[in-house]
Amino acid sequence: MTENPTPDVEPFDVVDVIRTKRDGSRLDEAQIDWVIDAYTRGVVAEEQMAALAMAIFLRGMERPEIARWTAAMIASGERMDFSALAKPTTDKHSTGGVGDKITLPLAPLVASYGVAVPQLSGRGLGHTGGTLDKLEAIPGWRAALTNDEMMRQLDEVGAVICAAGSGLAPADKKLYALRDVTGTVEAIPLIASSIMSKKIAEGTAALTLDVKTGAGAFMKDEGDARELARTMVDLGTDAGVRTVALLTDMSAPLGRTAGNGLEVRESLEVLSGGGPADVVELTCALAREMLEAAGVHDADVEAALADGRAMDSWRAMIAAQGGDVDAPLPTAQHVEELRASEDGVVTGLDAMGVGVAAWRLGAGRSRPGEAVQAAAGVEIEKHLGEEVRAGDVLARLHTDTPGRLARALEALDRAWDLSAPGTEVPERRIVLDRIG
Amino acid sequence: MTENPTPDVEPFDVVDVIRTKRDGSRLDEAQIDWVIDAYTRGVVAEEQMAALAMAIFLRGMERPEIARWTAAMIASGERMDFSALAKPTTDKHSTGGVGDKITLPLAPLVASYGVAVPQLSGRGLGHTGGTLDKLEAIPGWRAALTNDEMMRQLDEVGAVICAAGSGLAPADKKLYALRDVTGTVEAIPLIASSIMSKKIAEGTAALTLDVKTGAGAFMKDEGDARELARTMVDLGTDAGVRTVALLTDMSAPLGRTAGNGLEVRESLEVLSGGGPADVVELTCALAREMLEAAGVHDADVEAALADGRAMDSWRAMIAAQGGDVDAPLPTAQHVEELRASEDGVVTGLDAMGVGVAAWRLGAGRSRPGEAVQAAAGVEIEKHLGEEVRAGDVLARLHTDTPGRLARALEALDRAWDLSAPGTEVPERRIVLDRIG
Repeated sequence: MTENPTPDVEPFDVVDVIRTKRDGSRLDEAQIDWVIDAYTRGVVAEEQMAALAMAIFLRGMERPEIARWTAAMIASGERMDFSALAKPTTDKHSTGGVGDKITLPLAPLVASYGVAVPQLSGRGLGHTGGTLDKLEAIPGWRAALTNDEMMRQLDEVGAVICAAGSGLAPADKKLYALRDVTGTVEAIPLIASSIMSKKIAEGTAALTLDVKTGAGAFMKDEGDARELARTMVDLGTDAGVRTVALLTDMSAPLGRTAGNGLEVRESLEVLSGGGPADVVELTCALAREMLEAAGVHDADVEAALADGRAMDSWRAMIAAQGGDVDAPLPTAQHVEELRASEDGVVTGLDAMGVGVAAWRLGAGRSRPGEAVQAAAGVEIEKHLGEEVRAGDVLARLHTDTPGRLARALEALDRAWDLSAPGTEVPERRIVLDRIG
Repeated sequence: MTENPTPDVEPFDVVDVIRTKRDGSRLDEAQIDWVIDAYTRGVVAEEQMAALAMAIFLRGMERPEIARWTAAMIASGERMDFSALAKPTTDKHSTGGVGDKITLPLAPLVASYGVAVPQLSGRGLGHTGGTLDKLEAIPGWRAALTNDEMMRQLDEVGAVICAAGSGLAPADKKLYALRDVTGTVEAIPLIASSIMSKKIAEGTAALTLDVKTGAGAFMKDEGDARELARTMVDLGTDAGVRTVALLTDMSAPLGRTAGNGLEVRESLEVLSGGGPADVVELTCALAREMLEAAGVHDADVEAALADGRAMDSWRAMIAAQGGDVDAPLPTAQHVEELRASEDGVVTGLDAMGVGVAAWRLGAGRSRPGEAVQAAAGVEIEKHLGEEVRAGDVLARLHTDTPGRLARALEALDRAWDLSAPGTEVPERRIVLDRIG
């Protein structure tokens, strides 16, 4: 019904492309190149891409299709080029979790070894926070840099955490917003191509992926997370980026805070040589991978955290983007305590519950563009393995809008699993596997 | 990611509804009612409905879901009520084919028995023609009637063929246009609910369905056509409409014409007691079903065609809508002959090739709203079973725009299957089955 009696200027009919995937066939390279380009130009309408995305969701894509889809999204925009830098580049990407502030200590830690970390980051949506939202809790800090400013900072400071410019993979930007409202987010080919198109276009020579699994992760199922990791490692490798993935645990929150300013504070503890063991462990594991990929072998990254080198690098990085490193972090107008009703040992702490609570307190957003509260979030007093007495504070809830407390408390209702006092709790493994 | 920290005014989140179907579960009644209503109100966006339509396409719907979906589309608009009429109502719907002018002789034929035929018809799209486009080839005839005009004509004349008002199942109107551009047309639950929502809202007491199968039909596969017929008969029956379906052959065109004015001319032959045998056979078979359902048993419909009763009814019907029944039909500015290159017997005549040729000549449209030519189309000189000599005219191509001839001829390139002269051709069965 869509054939044109007179030939059109477009080489393909989008309905034919949709039908190809809908009926379970492979999209060929020319179809993929065209559909991504035509979508970027607005010739393929949002509803047409939505139907195609659902067909991809349910029919899947084979490895060559995913690679071409990724390449087409890269080709929709500009590519950055760091080859003029005198140092190697190495970057990291996390699939997102609750309390995942790792980028904050990690980027300056790695940069302290003389390598460049060009971290183009995003904002939070839903129960997962965004690195830029966290850093914006620091007075004066700005996320937007020009390409020239970014290059200069990489050269002089080494670490940059900033917003991706709109010129990078614009097709992905459009498609991501569409997937979010059409129930087509959780498809491995679409997730992998979305992440990797931005990272490859960004121009980093090496990439370490933190692929999370568990209740608070995007990929709750470990098999799915493993497939996503493998797909992304393949995409990066094929594109000439040295890519490694760590499969990491996101069943419980990372560290003791979820929320923007609260996570900056915890990151400063890590950069001061302290901080929660799980945050330190994952920061160091990722730092070693990033440094190895950049040619820095056997670095004693724990020492760089302990002796202040990483903190110096942090101060330079924040200051270069206008942040006042010595200004106090914002504090919430209201803090509510959640207390235990019985004695026990924490044998489970649901990352999703904590993430949703932080979001409801004002730390996260439901729609792109919404403002977030710098001081809102959840501070965990009793984490995995810790003894609790009835009446003890389990967590503190921070918010500027007390009307949000009730629903945040609801989200935390069954977040703590308490077992009988004295129960042995096995040590938490953060890094579950390495896929290289 | 789509949960709202503050409760919304809408009772459902459309992304949850999409995910439910995407993941293979059944939509419940409240979800279906809401999603159709919210789509009609514009709260559910086109891209969201496109994703849901593709999920329905690939995951299917169970019978109770289809029934509720249909009911929700009916509830999106007004319902007509013919209970004030002094005669029974009986209607027919065809799933569409090439040369399918059956409604033109059928409606007045059935009405000549004193029953009311409230035929709300559509326009053509792609290779299939539309009844309204055909009738508009008659000078003065108008498709748009008010509900009052329609009721008066049903009362006085008995037969009405007119455009469905925009108040009838507006959700279906919106959804149909969306499906057309998103590759989600050919899903049985969506086709069945689209057709039946309009027919049930139209308020007919009885409905005869002409479900076509074969190369020129929407449902090429007989099993699919049978499933569609069964689904629609069930939907109609459950809604209290006496519903029967005939499964009919659309491998070759019906009759010898495809095109608007050309098909009116052929319909007039049938109403005069002549016309091609296949068109007469199907018209009579459908008329008998429609009359039985309206309580008129054992009608000799062949006689009503032969003795002019059906023609009188036609003249009254056309005149009531402003048509000049005696005005000559428009003729095309260019007529091209297609000739046979060899001797043989026609053992196959591809309905799709003929339909696409008529469309390309200007009889059809590629997009809703495009104008069509009244005189364009294909006139078949050599139909199934007929002997052909090299040099004989196989068909005449009519158009006002000779630039369209080349691509129309292309569509007809392999439309005729010629077997060795003298080959026995089995008689064509038009009605393949009855599903009641």
